[in-house]
Amino acid sequence: MTRGKVYLIGAGPGSADLMTLRALRMLNAAEAVVHDRLVSPEILALAPRGARMIPVGKAPGHHSVPQERINEILFELATQGLAVARLKGGDPLIFGRGSEEAAYLAERGITVEYAPGITAAQGMAASCGVPLTHRGLATGVRYVTGHRAADQSLDLDWDSLADPETTLVVYMGAANMPEIALKLIRAGMPPDLPVMAVASATTPRERRLLSRLDRIGLDIRATPLKAPVLFVIGHVVSLHAEYADVSGAVQPEGMAAVAGE
Amino acid sequence: MTRGKVYLIGAGPGSADLMTLRALRMLNAAEAVVHDRLVSPEILALAPRGARMIPVGKAPGHHSVPQERINEILFELATQGLAVARLKGGDPLIFGRGSEEAAYLAERGITVEYAPGITAAQGMAASCGVPLTHRGLATGVRYVTGHRAADQSLDLDWDSLADPETTLVVYMGAANMPEIALKLIRAGMPPDLPVMAVASATTPRERRLLSRLDRIGLDIRATPLKAPVLFVIGHVVSLHAEYADVSGAVQPEGMAAVAGE
Repeated sequence: MTRGKVYLIGAGPGSADLMTLRALRMLNAAEAVVHDRLVSPEILALAPRGARMIPVGKAPGHHSVPQERINEILFELATQGLAVARLKGGDPLIFGRGSEEAAYLAERGITVEYAPGITAAQGMAASCGVPLTHRGLATGVRYVTGHRAADQSLDLDWDSLADPETTLVVYMGAANMPEIALKLIRAGMPPDLPVMAVASATTPRERRLLSRLDRIGLDIRATPLKAPVLFVIGHVVSLHAEYADVSGAVQPEGMAAVAGE
Repeated sequence: MTRGKVYLIGAGPGSADLMTLRALRMLNAAEAVVHDRLVSPEILALAPRGARMIPVGKAPGHHSVPQERINEILFELATQGLAVARLKGGDPLIFGRGSEEAAYLAERGITVEYAPGITAAQGMAASCGVPLTHRGLATGVRYVTGHRAADQSLDLDWDSLADPETTLVVYMGAANMPEIALKLIRAGMPPDLPVMAVASATTPRERRLLSRLDRIGLDIRATPLKAPVLFVIGHVVSLHAEYADVSGAVQPEGMAAVAGE
């Protein structure tokens, strides 16, 4: 029996030219493409003509395919002898569950190869000119997810997170940002710490919302952004070219700047 | 007067096919290439024939060019009307000082464009099959630098770092790993927490050292690795295919596994 293989590919943050050469090579070789719904249309357009396109994963208004079923789909396609591209936004090994899929497939004898991807935080940084580390402003960077399962509380170590010298990037946090901001302030983060929300970074649909920790909860409710949205919390946000416009204390709530490109 | 521009390019972790399409396009357009000495030879070979190649930055046995002088070199080349590629390992906005160079150039009227890069932690993850986040093992990931300036103490918030549910990646930490490991254990990290050191991830020179927090200081002295070296500290390291070989309590010190590809 001929067995296929599965390429676990990071599609990057959105812009097609931010894929790696390896990711493009693997996608070009694919006979089936199992992709997250949030992978940008610019990137899906690069799949080979004739490849089977199988959308899975979450998107507003769609039922998401359970992880167990995604695992099975990948296995079934590979056992048909196909070269399968599993295409995920960002990097498959940062909030991508790529290692769960790899373990499932490896246990069943399917060869898995990785292509890492530029994660959304890096796309944001390059697009907005806001670094993730910067001398005097941030000695390191940390990525967490702000998503929680139904009926569960946010499983985050607030005391550990409350380090204003570390840039904090919150993925999938739009729904819970009011709670996240409040808990960070209670744990000791400065209320006036700069915050930026960025939607669809690096794509033509990119939108930015500049705010501060004590206002981002209200601002993101007043100006909802379309998924995927990323929050950057830390002094580095003050390096954004337009940050001075919103950082004054006289800025009324709800007047956070929204900048698009 | 014609002014050039500067491309701040992330070269990625080492393997040339882990550059982004944008990075390759910018490099192809360069008339001068100002590169860190640790950028891999495979990637430097992609620079256009005839481009001026200017090595800066640190490497063993070379004097490093001070950051101020690098800024001036970039400015001088751009004011000659050249398209300048500033090529850095990893991502220019993660421990890359790219935002300092960008600010210097922007203040002087030079156009700057970014290409983000796969950072070493992501290269390690894809190469070793060790994810940076994984359900039940790591809810997030954090990058810090273990480098310190001469006569200074390590400027890290040990209490905040001691979160075993967050994968901790230490860049530039080989010299100080004994101290880092000790302080993390004192701050509450489990002594048997898995640790992996990876040198030159994703290149043919890649080497791995599997250990645990209470032994890595000795192991890295017994088996020095060539720069650049990255340390991954956290439960995710237990997913490495060969981890079981070294995680037993009977493993004597100095017998940590070294794996190459």
